[in-house]
Amino acid sequence: MKTYAEMTKEELQAEKDRLQARYDKYKAQDLDLNMARGKPSLEQEEASIEMLDIINSRSNLTTEESTDVLNYGCLTGLIEVKRLFSDILEVPVEKIIVGGNSSLNMMFDYLMQCYAMGAGEGLEPWVLQGGCKFLCPSPGYDRHFGIAEYLGLELIPVPMTENGPDMDVVEELVKDPKVKGMFCVPKYANPTGQSYSDETVRRIAKMKTVEDFRVIWDNAYVIHDLTGRHDDVLDLLDECEKAGNPDRAVLFASTSKVTFPGAGIAVLAANEGNRDWILKRLDKQTIGSDKINQLRHVRFFKDGISDVKNHMDKLAGIITPHFNVVLSTFERKLKPRDICSWTNPNGGYFISLDCMEGTATRVFQLCKECGVTLTTVGATFPYGKDPKDSNMRIAPTYPSLEELAVATDVLCIAIRLAALEKILSE
Amino acid sequence: MKTYAEMTKEELQAEKDRLQARYDKYKAQDLDLNMARGKPSLEQEEASIEMLDIINSRSNLTTEESTDVLNYGCLTGLIEVKRLFSDILEVPVEKIIVGGNSSLNMMFDYLMQCYAMGAGEGLEPWVLQGGCKFLCPSPGYDRHFGIAEYLGLELIPVPMTENGPDMDVVEELVKDPKVKGMFCVPKYANPTGQSYSDETVRRIAKMKTVEDFRVIWDNAYVIHDLTGRHDDVLDLLDECEKAGNPDRAVLFASTSKVTFPGAGIAVLAANEGNRDWILKRLDKQTIGSDKINQLRHVRFFKDGISDVKNHMDKLAGIITPHFNVVLSTFERKLKPRDICSWTNPNGGYFISLDCMEGTATRVFQLCKECGVTLTTVGATFPYGKDPKDSNMRIAPTYPSLEELAVATDVLCIAIRLAALEKILSE
Repeated sequence: MKTYAEMTKEELQAEKDRLQARYDKYKAQDLDLNMARGKPSLEQEEASIEMLDIINSRSNLTTEESTDVLNYGCLTGLIEVKRLFSDILEVPVEKIIVGGNSSLNMMFDYLMQCYAMGAGEGLEPWVLQGGCKFLCPSPGYDRHFGIAEYLGLELIPVPMTENGPDMDVVEELVKDPKVKGMFCVPKYANPTGQSYSDETVRRIAKMKTVEDFRVIWDNAYVIHDLTGRHDDVLDLLDECEKAGNPDRAVLFASTSKVTFPGAGIAVLAANEGNRDWILKRLDKQTIGSDKINQLRHVRFFKDGISDVKNHMDKLAGIITPHFNVVLSTFERKLKPRDICSWTNPNGGYFISLDCMEGTATRVFQLCKECGVTLTTVGATFPYGKDPKDSNMRIAPTYPSLEELAVATDVLCIAIRLAALEKILSE
Repeated sequence: MKTYAEMTKEELQAEKDRLQARYDKYKAQDLDLNMARGKPSLEQEEASIEMLDIINSRSNLTTEESTDVLNYGCLTGLIEVKRLFSDILEVPVEKIIVGGNSSLNMMFDYLMQCYAMGAGEGLEPWVLQGGCKFLCPSPGYDRHFGIAEYLGLELIPVPMTENGPDMDVVEELVKDPKVKGMFCVPKYANPTGQSYSDETVRRIAKMKTVEDFRVIWDNAYVIHDLTGRHDDVLDLLDECEKAGNPDRAVLFASTSKVTFPGAGIAVLAANEGNRDWILKRLDKQTIGSDKINQLRHVRFFKDGISDVKNHMDKLAGIITPHFNVVLSTFERKLKPRDICSWTNPNGGYFISLDCMEGTATRVFQLCKECGVTLTTVGATFPYGKDPKDSNMRIAPTYPSLEELAVATDVLCIAIRLAALEKILSE
């Protein structure tokens, strides 16, 4: 089969006409399919549904430290939950603070604290320093960028490599004292699905930065393996401590993609200095998070980390076929044309696809007109602007396998049509 | 029976010796009683315990707007919850935003937003204005004062009257453009138990302030009646709108003292301008609060406000006897001596007691040494300093009636002993 580069203009035109006919057929079907967000499916939720039976009016509602889960208190969370996350994240129990249902909320609150009150005791609030900047490895997570943009920080894109952010670029950028931090999804990154190499982690820990530089280490997919090949990522908190920069990073995670997206448990982990600083705020912010949900989680995973791992295997069994539908369709429909590339991750929630430069917006539009919703083009870049108009984040988990097959087929047609439109107009 | 003012020195000394003997007897008993915090009792929790059976794996988990409560989304909360709170707070549904389990958290986040980002579109953040101040009607709620103190706002005490804050003082203070707001618990105030008069509410709505002045209207006890005499408080949001100051106030409430203290639902209500401004933040801060708990609440109160009111009557049946133990003991043990005064509220969680000036710290210490923990003296005042060393916040809900009888007896002995020590040393 010929690549587009090898085709004559007539062959390209014939291909375009053929695809247009298929596209028009789909368009007539009034599709309503969505691959926009990394949303777990009903089937995934079903895998945790028995958790809803764990706590009832006949349950013992007192924890091992004699906390009544119905009443006030327990600011940093139940020890049982800390222990579970200690095993999941492989960080010591005492570094962990349990939050509500949203790690995004914990990140926002932490960054807001750095912005308004400073990143630590005696450090000047970013808002008073003026003109602060934040590094945004891109493509990355739109909601991260949204927080920094809300705070008026200048978003600085950093290219992603298969080993994480391009550290040559990062090390150069952090020489600017106005650069105050960086967002990182170190494992099965959103959206590339790739993981940070040991060298990347060590360089992040060691590089010279201003004292109030903070890494938002969003370990959202820490146990979210999909294949037999598991990525391993070094513990940044530990590396920072070893490098003499103990307060450089704060780690975030949750069970949103383990149990229920809207009713999981979020945590952060931090070394002593950051932990104390965060607690100074938290102590004024709340009396404590919902402990019923905390207890429900630890009783559901009653054998701890081994139960969690079995559960994640079960989820992988549901999710992997979704990834395979997309990847195998890409392989069949796109690879022979040699017009784009995509990632094939070992875990996480996304496939990152780079279509022909300058065509992503058109692909999005073609899909939309056909009833297939994709992540807004550019969303994975600071200020929503993909400089190459090329990257698309594919989220395969939510649609059914049948829907996904159709949506991916439409997507492949759109990618090829947009490429052909571009080639033929040049 | 003689008041202390009527007694001779010998009579006072004899009274002191008699009380000291009783005090020493209690001290020998190794008591461990706590009247420090407005914490609902186990019996109160028990009244809502069936709520834990409402949601299980066989429940319909889809709401009337087809929201899957397990998944992401629904930033402002379920419409069913908004409707319930609309009835509870008597404000229109569209003004309500549902949060997590803590109204304190919502207040903190709102004040942090005003501080770091400004109180509205185009308004200068308080942090950049420098030297901002906040009015603290006192005695008041220590956790309110804690938020403002954390943000570095200067806390300005305002005397409380039986109709709410002394509005002559407030109207004078708000002439200072650095005064940016005021904390209010308008109904069954913490700790006085008194409610704001219509005139007070109207004056708050009408007074001339800077544009970014904000009232934190913490309606924590809005349906928490204890007696047949119910207080009514005007709707400040409405009054502000009528007075041409629609963005002056934000209202907060929760079910922490309706269902479960640690796992209730918190809400805020605001007029359009504030609501939009808050949503700009919230949209970046979280994807949505726990909707399982929201659904559990509306299904537990399936007939809406009438179920809530019946439930509150049931709770009043549990709580009122606790108040009566304290009040009747005060009546018997303290009134004849004419050394102090206290409030007798129609609802809420506290009794506010003013003991002889200059003796509250001593009373606290005497109680503590006897195993009875009270709210730290001064906690109800800005910076923890009661200028008269006189106010004590009594929280009768948590201890059992038996414990409460003992604790209150110890307290009365301590109040009298401290007064006698003071009189005899003068």
